[in-house]
Amino acid sequence: MSGNSFGEIFRLTTFGESHGPALGVIVDGVPAGIRIDETLIQRDLDRRRPGQSKVSTMRKERDRVEILSGVFEGVSTGTSLAMLIRNTDQRSQDYSKIATLFRPGHADLGFTRKYGIRDYRGGGRSSGRETAARVAAGAVAKMVLKEFGVTVRACAVMIGGVYAETIDWNEVEKNIVRSPDASAAERMIDAIRRAQADRDSVGGHILCEALGVPAGWGEPVFDKLDALLAHAVMSIGGIKGVEIGDGFDASLLRGSGNNDPILPDGFASNHAGGVLGGISNGDVIRLRAAMKPTSSIARRQTTINTDGKPAEIEVLGRHDPCLVPRAVPVVEAMTALVLADLALRNRCARI
Amino acid sequence: MSGNSFGEIFRLTTFGESHGPALGVIVDGVPAGIRIDETLIQRDLDRRRPGQSKVSTMRKERDRVEILSGVFEGVSTGTSLAMLIRNTDQRSQDYSKIATLFRPGHADLGFTRKYGIRDYRGGGRSSGRETAARVAAGAVAKMVLKEFGVTVRACAVMIGGVYAETIDWNEVEKNIVRSPDASAAERMIDAIRRAQADRDSVGGHILCEALGVPAGWGEPVFDKLDALLAHAVMSIGGIKGVEIGDGFDASLLRGSGNNDPILPDGFASNHAGGVLGGISNGDVIRLRAAMKPTSSIARRQTTINTDGKPAEIEVLGRHDPCLVPRAVPVVEAMTALVLADLALRNRCARI
Amino acid sequence: MSGNSFGEIFRLTTFGESHGPALGVIVDGVPAGIRIDETLIQRDLDRRRPGQSKVSTMRKERDRVEILSGVFEGVSTGTSLAMLIRNTDQRSQDYSKIATLFRPGHADLGFTRKYGIRDYRGGGRSSGRETAARVAAGAVAKMVLKEFGVTVRACAVMIGGVYAETIDWNEVEKNIVRSPDASAAERMIDAIRRAQADRDSVGGHILCEALGVPAGWGEPVFDKLDALLAHAVMSIGGIKGVEIGDGFDASLLRGSGNNDPILPDGFASNHAGGVLGGISNGDVIRLRAAMKPTSSIARRQTTINTDGKPAEIEVLGRHDPCLVPRAVPVVEAMTALVLADLALRNRCARI
Amino acid sequence: MSGNSFGEIFRLTTFGESHGPALGVIVDGVPAGIRIDETLIQRDLDRRRPGQSKVSTMRKERDRVEILSGVFEGVSTGTSLAMLIRNTDQRSQDYSKIATLFRPGHADLGFTRKYGIRDYRGGGRSSGRETAARVAAGAVAKMVLKEFGVTVRACAVMIGGVYAETIDWNEVEKNIVRSPDASAAERMIDAIRRAQADRDSVGGHILCEALGVPAGWGEPVFDKLDALLAHAVMSIGGIKGVEIGDGFDASLLRGSGNNDPILPDGFASNHAGGVLGGISNGDVIRLRAAMKPTSSIARRQTTINTDGKPAEIEVLGRHDPCLVPRAVPVVEAMTALVLADLALRNRCARI
Repeated sequence: MSGNSFGEIFRLTTFGESHGPALGVIVDGVPAGIRIDETLIQRDLDRRRPGQSKVSTMRKERDRVEILSGVFEGVSTGTSLAMLIRNTDQRSQDYSKIATLFRPGHADLGFTRKYGIRDYRGGGRSSGRETAARVAAGAVAKMVLKEFGVTVRACAVMIGGVYAETIDWNEVEKNIVRSPDASAAERMIDAIRRAQADRDSVGGHILCEALGVPAGWGEPVFDKLDALLAHAVMSIGGIKGVEIGDGFDASLLRGSGNNDPILPDGFASNHAGGVLGGISNGDVIRLRAAMKPTSSIARRQTTINTDGKPAEIEVLGRHDPCLVPRAVPVVEAMTALVLADLALRNRCARI
Repeated sequence: MSGNSFGEIFRLTTFGESHGPALGVIVDGVPAGIRIDETLIQRDLDRRRPGQSKVSTMRKERDRVEILSGVFEGVSTGTSLAMLIRNTDQRSQDYSKIATLFRPGHADLGFTRKYGIRDYRGGGRSSGRETAARVAAGAVAKMVLKEFGVTVRACAVMIGGVYAETIDWNEVEKNIVRSPDASAAERMIDAIRRAQADRDSVGGHILCEALGVPAGWGEPVFDKLDALLAHAVMSIGGIKGVEIGDGFDASLLRGSGNNDPILPDGFASNHAGGVLGGISNGDVIRLRAAMKPTSSIARRQTTINTDGKPAEIEVLGRHDPCLVPRAVPVVEAMTALVLADLALRNRCARI
Repeated sequence: MSGNSFGEIFRLTTFGESHGPALGVIVDGVPAGIRIDETLIQRDLDRRRPGQSKVSTMRKERDRVEILSGVFEGVSTGTSLAMLIRNTDQRSQDYSKIATLFRPGHADLGFTRKYGIRDYRGGGRSSGRETAARVAAGAVAKMVLKEFGVTVRACAVMIGGVYAETIDWNEVEKNIVRSPDASAAERMIDAIRRAQADRDSVGGHILCEALGVPAGWGEPVFDKLDALLAHAVMSIGGIKGVEIGDGFDASLLRGSGNNDPILPDGFASNHAGGVLGGISNGDVIRLRAAMKPTSSIARRQTTINTDGKPAEIEVLGRHDPCLVPRAVPVVEAMTALVLADLALRNRCARI
Repeated sequence: MSGNSFGEIFRLTTFGESHGPALGVIVDGVPAGIRIDETLIQRDLDRRRPGQSKVSTMRKERDRVEILSGVFEGVSTGTSLAMLIRNTDQRSQDYSKIATLFRPGHADLGFTRKYGIRDYRGGGRSSGRETAARVAAGAVAKMVLKEFGVTVRACAVMIGGVYAETIDWNEVEKNIVRSPDASAAERMIDAIRRAQADRDSVGGHILCEALGVPAGWGEPVFDKLDALLAHAVMSIGGIKGVEIGDGFDASLLRGSGNNDPILPDGFASNHAGGVLGGISNGDVIRLRAAMKPTSSIARRQTTINTDGKPAEIEVLGRHDPCLVPRAVPVVEAMTALVLADLALRNRCARI
């Protein structure tokens, strides 16, 4: 109801502000009997954490996860699984000077209008820091999906106007922007650095795939697989568009060109991105998300203060000039969360 | 859980197959005291119904709505509001010849794998006919939104490769494709007819706006306004992509170009589409959806039968060569449903 | 959210007022592949319907059910299953004379304060007539439970101070009060008739059992099996108390007397009513519900009118002097709905 | 879905096992702008905690609460409010000797059948220790209710067969059994001690009242106020029965005796316990709950081991011979949680 939960059977509920004592998540609906590997959770958190590379913020939050419940002798017990991440590198004083200003591109104004009160330290609940909880839960979702033979992967296919020209999944974790094209990666890094030098920022596109999803996942009408993926991915801060399969390009094709011919062992093409009528069709699930350029920039911008008076603002702090590389594991997490939930929901489709 | 419901406080649950006796919807959470105007419900149903123009299917379902509960002397009572639409022009025999074939681009394969059983008559539950229930509920949502001073409108901004070059909202209901550009409308109609002549189909883009939404609607983290809009719109059959504001284009801008400067009386631009951090910012809400070309085409296509053997199929029946004009009121309805729900949810944001 | 739905996976949503055109229910989450026997639904509706015996109201609503969706060739398809019951014997004029009076023992006052508007015809949504929708859905739940080997049964063990002294389940449907003790049945009928002669009413107790429930159903903490049963049964109009197993009597025992010894093939006793720690233990599930005497009585009673002024009221209409016999199938239905939901929820307990 | 959450708008989700590192709760839907007084949360936790008196277990868990989010400068922000309680006095070795035995009266058997795995240390998730999270959340609910002018209170009206003969609310916190009758309190303590001397246990009855609830709270049909109270209270471990108002006794009255006459300034009596048709009527809300005697007793009992073989068990550990006094704040908490949720839900009843 208040937007802190996601999923029906496999369901997470998160808490925490960027500058409070901690953030965390309760993952509910983890079936009993799954081996919970804490190192895999930590690995995904490390892929998301700030300060991991030269194009990332210098804020160095370790994001050490502690499992508080739901696991006994390394195996899930079927009860709610809580994880805690303490905030360690908070510098609230950085924000005091902009406490009465609304930052352009941020939720500040909306939160203030909504609640009549706002934790101005780093965005509080609206900070991208909340995605750490998603990533921790997503790592558990991946362990559930592994039992179904499903894997999820993502990469940055465009950053600052530079597009990946090839998709080599083995390249992704070898470069700091998570590009599937090593040569494009260099140019992406350049684009980020040029923006940074200009006290500016860039955005990009993330491609995400799920392999091994059998035909039949997704619920008709409102909880279609693609609808839930769109919900999940669009709920990540900064995402402004989501496509399934060919997406917007599909609308320029004719039906005869867009329909994927059905063969005895699969499909002759995958314009659909593995989803037909909202139900997985057995092919690779494929989506693309558009992330806007980072809103926090050190340039002088026009804004108002909390009294509604005109003002100027420079958002100094320690901000990523491009959030796309760190958003890659977040998109993976959200995709895994949707699929783990639908895998379990599908258990009740038939008697 | 099974995907037939949408919304939290203002919540609809739908039922009905294309070739069963009826379809309908229970709208729950309609506040007491709202004047329910049945003619407005019927008007939106008429905008969605088949056979309304020469570019639409010849199937002539009247889609007459009957209100069964929740209204007393023309005013909502606060109890669940049910609406019924009888199916009248069913020709199940049209489908008997393809009962054992999976139609490319359709949910047939997924439904069969999921349930082990399938109502093959016109897609059954996966038929676009279920959107009539959405439109009826959406009309009620519009009545709720009217109390908050909010209106919703949509139009077709691209069909078959032809783009609207101007947005004149007064034009939309004057042409049969619901284009906001009268001149483009003619070329869109041409594109549809050419596709039809080729036993083929085309897709398009729908633009939707909500006017009058105050700052503060949307729930942080998972139920962001844009995330729910993406969910809602992507759940419409045939939609393959959703953008908020500048969407994919925003990811090519720099932060300084994409951030909307904040002025005392609003924003200097609206790249954001009226949503920041998932919360409405007081500006016009704006989204765009991409619809694929109609999957049901009379051309010969490659497929398999229910035994998994190769086959060919021609989907004859009575199908729209382009569903975009009829999808316009459906996108409006889904947008209105999200907003009505968030308007009510927002009542609990503060003590 | 608005109280018209119940259940998580197997979930019903109901609509309808006593004097509107119809009432009905959408049953969501019915697994595909279950044979739906309409005659069993009708049989349970007949057990609930008014006018079925000389101790029941003379109102003769036929309560004919029509299935609108979710069933294809007699088998559930996995999609939402809607059922409609038209209201046929409405006499709204009966209520016009009490339209401005609040009936003691009824929801009139609360509804008016809540909604600011009230359908005064027969209680509108608060009428016991809404239980027809529960019974129809409950009949479908019983068909689901049959697949798990579970049956549900109920009877009236006390009416008007007369207690059943034996429990013979074969007797229950042979007498008009649904007593499991034929001799007590006669005295129960007498008690009802004496109350009726005095323009008064009586209440009673209902016993309900579920046979065949395996150990392991129920969700820890908040959705314990007994908690959901209490919710379900207490939600029936007129029910004022619910006990599981020995209930209130258990609180007078010592632990050594109340704990059921565990044997290799079951338990040596069943004080617990088949539920331990909120989870079924494999023994018979047993609950008891207390129903108050009918609130609608023809005696003169003290009340106020809608202006808050003192008044007197005689609720004439056609009312049952005892609702317990007709509530028996309703308690069965609610119990079956809880169990069908938990049976499906339990499918996700383990990987 | 997995039973770890309760409530719709004001919603808690709990986690934690008795012998894991910590337990806690996320409280979602706390409106912004409420002063959060940590000392009141701690006070209720102290009323629930073990080792608080000579009739309570010697286990001395301090139950120190830490607020992790949702509060800024002492005031709720509208975002999810998480609270953590570390476990400090765990002695898992106490349980190793009964790790392979099912304790009579406990959830052991059901959990094992359900999940195929069980944390045998002190009951794990099924331990009464989880109620600490409810009490912490309930204290926050009381702060919300204070804004509506509502207070909740409870006491022990029967223990071990000894009934309170008077209700003096000022007495309740003055004696260690929380009896509203000082003289009965002495005899209740005696009853507990005698049971303890016999290596046995006793149960009792808890009365709970809510004052100041206006007419109109509760949702028709399935989420009636009394149905939710029954759900909430029955979900507490050891509760086997719940009554609203006169409860089971009401079913022995005639309608003329049970209906509460309506006067211009309220009701002439309160048989109904403040609830009519599931909606509050403005009178005092009153319920009674029956708690069974503690299942963990040191007497030798008949059971089976995890291989299904006959065995004997003595549950030694440190267990309360009567849990009723410590359950009093838990019943208060659950009642407060229901009311806080319904207070907020009621905000959407009218436009």
